[in-house]
Amino acid sequence: MWNFYRVANIFGKLEVKTLLEKLRREVYEANILLPKLSLVNFTWGNVSGIDREKNLFVIKPSGVEYDKLSPENMVVVNLSGETVEGDLNPSSDTLTHMVLYNEFPNIGAIVHVHSAWATAFAQAGVDIEALGTTHADMFYGAVPVSDALTKEEIESDYEENTGKVIVRTFRERNIDPDAVPSVLVRQHGPFSWAKTPLKAVEVAKTLEIIAEINYHALQLTRADIKLPQYLLDKHYLRKHGKNAYYGQKK
Amino acid sequence: MWNFYRVANIFGKLEVKTLLEKLRREVYEANILLPKLSLVNFTWGNVSGIDREKNLFVIKPSGVEYDKLSPENMVVVNLSGETVEGDLNPSSDTLTHMVLYNEFPNIGAIVHVHSAWATAFAQAGVDIEALGTTHADMFYGAVPVSDALTKEEIESDYEENTGKVIVRTFRERNIDPDAVPSVLVRQHGPFSWAKTPLKAVEVAKTLEIIAEINYHALQLTRADIKLPQYLLDKHYLRKHGKNAYYGQKK
Amino acid sequence: MWNFYRVANIFGKLEVKTLLEKLRREVYEANILLPKLSLVNFTWGNVSGIDREKNLFVIKPSGVEYDKLSPENMVVVNLSGETVEGDLNPSSDTLTHMVLYNEFPNIGAIVHVHSAWATAFAQAGVDIEALGTTHADMFYGAVPVSDALTKEEIESDYEENTGKVIVRTFRERNIDPDAVPSVLVRQHGPFSWAKTPLKAVEVAKTLEIIAEINYHALQLTRADIKLPQYLLDKHYLRKHGKNAYYGQKK
Amino acid sequence: MWNFYRVANIFGKLEVKTLLEKLRREVYEANILLPKLSLVNFTWGNVSGIDREKNLFVIKPSGVEYDKLSPENMVVVNLSGETVEGDLNPSSDTLTHMVLYNEFPNIGAIVHVHSAWATAFAQAGVDIEALGTTHADMFYGAVPVSDALTKEEIESDYEENTGKVIVRTFRERNIDPDAVPSVLVRQHGPFSWAKTPLKAVEVAKTLEIIAEINYHALQLTRADIKLPQYLLDKHYLRKHGKNAYYGQKK
Repeated sequence: MWNFYRVANIFGKLEVKTLLEKLRREVYEANILLPKLSLVNFTWGNVSGIDREKNLFVIKPSGVEYDKLSPENMVVVNLSGETVEGDLNPSSDTLTHMVLYNEFPNIGAIVHVHSAWATAFAQAGVDIEALGTTHADMFYGAVPVSDALTKEEIESDYEENTGKVIVRTFRERNIDPDAVPSVLVRQHGPFSWAKTPLKAVEVAKTLEIIAEINYHALQLTRADIKLPQYLLDKHYLRKHGKNAYYGQKK
Repeated sequence: MWNFYRVANIFGKLEVKTLLEKLRREVYEANILLPKLSLVNFTWGNVSGIDREKNLFVIKPSGVEYDKLSPENMVVVNLSGETVEGDLNPSSDTLTHMVLYNEFPNIGAIVHVHSAWATAFAQAGVDIEALGTTHADMFYGAVPVSDALTKEEIESDYEENTGKVIVRTFRERNIDPDAVPSVLVRQHGPFSWAKTPLKAVEVAKTLEIIAEINYHALQLTRADIKLPQYLLDKHYLRKHGKNAYYGQKK
Repeated sequence: MWNFYRVANIFGKLEVKTLLEKLRREVYEANILLPKLSLVNFTWGNVSGIDREKNLFVIKPSGVEYDKLSPENMVVVNLSGETVEGDLNPSSDTLTHMVLYNEFPNIGAIVHVHSAWATAFAQAGVDIEALGTTHADMFYGAVPVSDALTKEEIESDYEENTGKVIVRTFRERNIDPDAVPSVLVRQHGPFSWAKTPLKAVEVAKTLEIIAEINYHALQLTRADIKLPQYLLDKHYLRKHGKNAYYGQKK
Repeated sequence: MWNFYRVANIFGKLEVKTLLEKLRREVYEANILLPKLSLVNFTWGNVSGIDREKNLFVIKPSGVEYDKLSPENMVVVNLSGETVEGDLNPSSDTLTHMVLYNEFPNIGAIVHVHSAWATAFAQAGVDIEALGTTHADMFYGAVPVSDALTKEEIESDYEENTGKVIVRTFRERNIDPDAVPSVLVRQHGPFSWAKTPLKAVEVAKTLEIIAEINYHALQLTRADIKLPQYLLDKHYLRKHGKNAYYGQKK
C-alpha cells in the first residue's frame, strides 16, 4: 500500500503533507484534463508539477488509466529521478521530466502527450513555424523539432537523453524555453511546460490547435507566410510582456 | 463592483436600463454559443452588439472564460472606444469592433474568432472563393483576406488599425460589407457581422463550414471551379434578395 | 393554422389520415436524424417520402429548424409540385424532389444535405469512384457529379431543372438510380434516395463516409486504385443481390 | 429461439455454460466499444474471441445493430466455420476470422472495422510505415497492405480467401503476426488481433490513430522519415519485450 506519511518524517510531518496535497491535486486535475481536451488516447500522456522549494516533483504513475487516477496515487520523485513517495512506478518518461526541471529553472510543470496534429509535425521533422497571431499569442517564435537521438543515446538512458536532446536543441538554436514553452521530440511527440500544471495543459492544447491550423495553411499555399517579427512581437507581448494589456488586471 | 445604474443618470434611468438589458442578454447568449458551436477554444473569441440609437455597443470582457460570463459582466463601450459601463476591461479587440461599427453603418453585431478552417485561409493569405451554393447562400462573392498591416500600423493603435485595414480592403476591392459579411484578417483570423448577435454567430459558423469544404475541394482538383455569376446570383438572391423565396414569410 | 383534415375530403377521411400520419412520422424522424448524424448544419437539408398509391409526398417545411419540426408541420405535396396540405412553405428544393419521384419510379424517399465531404467532391466536380468495399457495399459504381445547369436552366425553374439535370446525367451515363442511389449536384451538394426515409438517410450518411475515405486515399497515392469489377460485384451483390447473404433473413 | 443449453449436452452442461458465458460477455463488451471509440458506423464491424481449449469462437451476428446486441445473441462457431450455438447468422466475415484463428495460433481475439483512416490506407494500397514512437509502442514494424485477391479468390469462398491472403502476405513478407497485430486488407479495411477481445479493440483504435498521424506526416514532407530500427526496438521492447518496463508490474 501507498504510505501517506513516508516522506513526512524527513521534512516535518504537517508542512510536507499540506504542500504535497495541493500539488498532488493540481497534477491530478491536470492529468484528467488531458482526455477531456482530446489530447490523449488510452494512457498516452502525463503531467508533472514541481515544488521548487523541496525539489520534488509529482508525476502520473505509468500506464494507469485516467479514470483510475487520484491525487493519492500520483508518484513523488526527486531531481535525481528517484521515487520518494508512492508504490506505483512513475511515468516511463519521468527522467525526461527530471532533466527539463533541472535545466529549465523557471518551469513549474510539464505535459507530454501524443496529440495527433503536433505528433504529425514531430514525425515529419517540420518545425511549427509562427504563421499567425494564434501562434504568437502563446509562442514567441517557431516550436522546434528536436535533434534526433543517436543510436547510443537511445540504447542507454533513453528517457534521460530525450531530456538532454531537448535542452541541447534549445541551446544550439538559441531558443528561450520560457518564451517558446513546447518542443516536438523528433519522431516522438510534443512536450510542453509552464508555471503550473493547469497552464501547461493549456500550452499543450494550444500547440495542438496551431499545429492543425498551420498544417492546413501549408497545404493551401507555397508562399512564404511566416509572420513578420513586428506582428509576432505585438501579439506575444500584448499577452506576455511587461506591458501586457490582454485580459483583466490581477 | 460593477455599477448597474452608472449610465442611467446620463440617458434616463428606466429606458436605458431596459434597453441595455435586452442587448446585454443577446450579446451574452451569442458569446456563449461560440464554444457550443466549436468556434472558439479557451477565451479566443468575442461577440459585440450595438444599439444604433444610443451609439453604444456591448462587448465581451477581455480574457474571461465563457462559463464565467453573464449579461451583467458584459462591457458597454461608446463609438470612441471608451468604456461607459462595466468594471472589467473590454475585449482587447474592442477598437476593431468600434471602427467597423463606425464605417459599416448597417451592421448591428460583430463576431471575432480564431476558428480553425477560416484561420488557415487567413494564415495562407488565400481568399475563400465562392465554389458552391453553400457559400452563395450566405456570401455574395469571395470572402477576402485583408491587406497586411504595415509595421507602423501594428506598432501603434494596432487594434484600431486592424479595423481600418478591413474597411480599406472592402473599399479598394469594391466589396459591399452587407453582401459579404465576413473578412479574413491576414495572418490573424475572421471577423463576421450581421444585424443581430445571433445572426452574426450564424455567419461565423457558416464561414467556418465553407472554409472546410473549400479546402478539400481545392485539394481535389486544379480545375477552375469558381461559381459562375448566375449561380451565385440565384442562390444568394433566393435567400437574401427582394424576391427571396427561401424559408417562411415573416 | 394547419388543417389536419383538409385533404381528407378528397380521398376519404379515415384512410388518408392514417396513411399520412405514418408517412409524416417517418419523414419527420428521418429529418431529425440529419443533425444527429452530423449531416446538416442549421436548416441546410431536407428529407421527403412518397406514398406511391396516392402520388403524394411529404417534405420538410422550408427554413424551419430541426428542433421545431413535428410530424404535423411537414408539408404534403402532389406530383405536380402543388402543396396539398400544410400552411408552411415546403422546402425550396421541393421541385427537385418532385422530378426525381416522377422519373425514378422505384424510389420512396429522398434526402438532400450539404454534408462537408460529399459537398467538397460536388464543388470539385470529381466523381466519388468506387475505391473500396465500403463503397461497394452500398453503391454499385461511381457516384456521379451531375452536369452543370446552363444559365437559362438556372434563371428559370431552377429547382425543377436541378431534378432534370440529375435524371439526364443518369441517362446519359447509363447509370441505374436503383443501384447508385446518390448524385452530387455540381457545385451544390448530394441528393440520395432509397425505398424509405430512414434508409435514404443511411445512404446519405454512407455517401459522406466514403467521400471522406476516398478523399484521403486519393491524397495518399497517384496509382489507379479503382475497384476491379469482380470485387465491386462481390460486395454489392452479397448485400443487395437476389442471393444476398449479409445480415439476417427477414 | 436461441437455445442456451444446446451445446451444453456435448461438453457437459455446467462447465461449458460458465466458460462461454465469460467469453460471450467479453466479446459482447468489445463489440459495443466499437461505436463508442468511433471505430464503426452502422453495423460495419465485428469482434470475435476464441476459447483455445474448446476450439470454439464467439462472434457478432451479421448486420445486427450494436444497441441490439447482448451476450446471449452472440454466435458460437467452430474452427471449420460451422455455427455451433445461436439462431442468428454469424458475421459475414466469420470465415476470415476462422482462417486467422487456425493459422495464427497465439491470437485470442479479432476485430474487423472500416475505420476511416486505416481504410484510406487500405484503399490507397499504402502500408502504414513506422514513422513514430506512437506506432512503435504497438507495432513492431509497418502494418502491411495485403496482396489483392484474384478474381477467382473473390468469386468463390471470398471470406475464407480473405483470411488466406492475409496469412500469405505475412508469410511472404516474413512478418510475425504477434509483433504486428494488424493488416490492411487491400481495398477493404483493417483486421486487428490480440490475446483478448478488449485488447484487440485497443489495437484497432491504435491503428486508426497512427494512420491519422502518418497521413498528415506524409503530406508535410517528402523526406524519408521512417523510424530507425534502434528507435523502433527501443519503444516496442520497452512495452512488449521480456524486459518491458512500461506500466506497473502485474
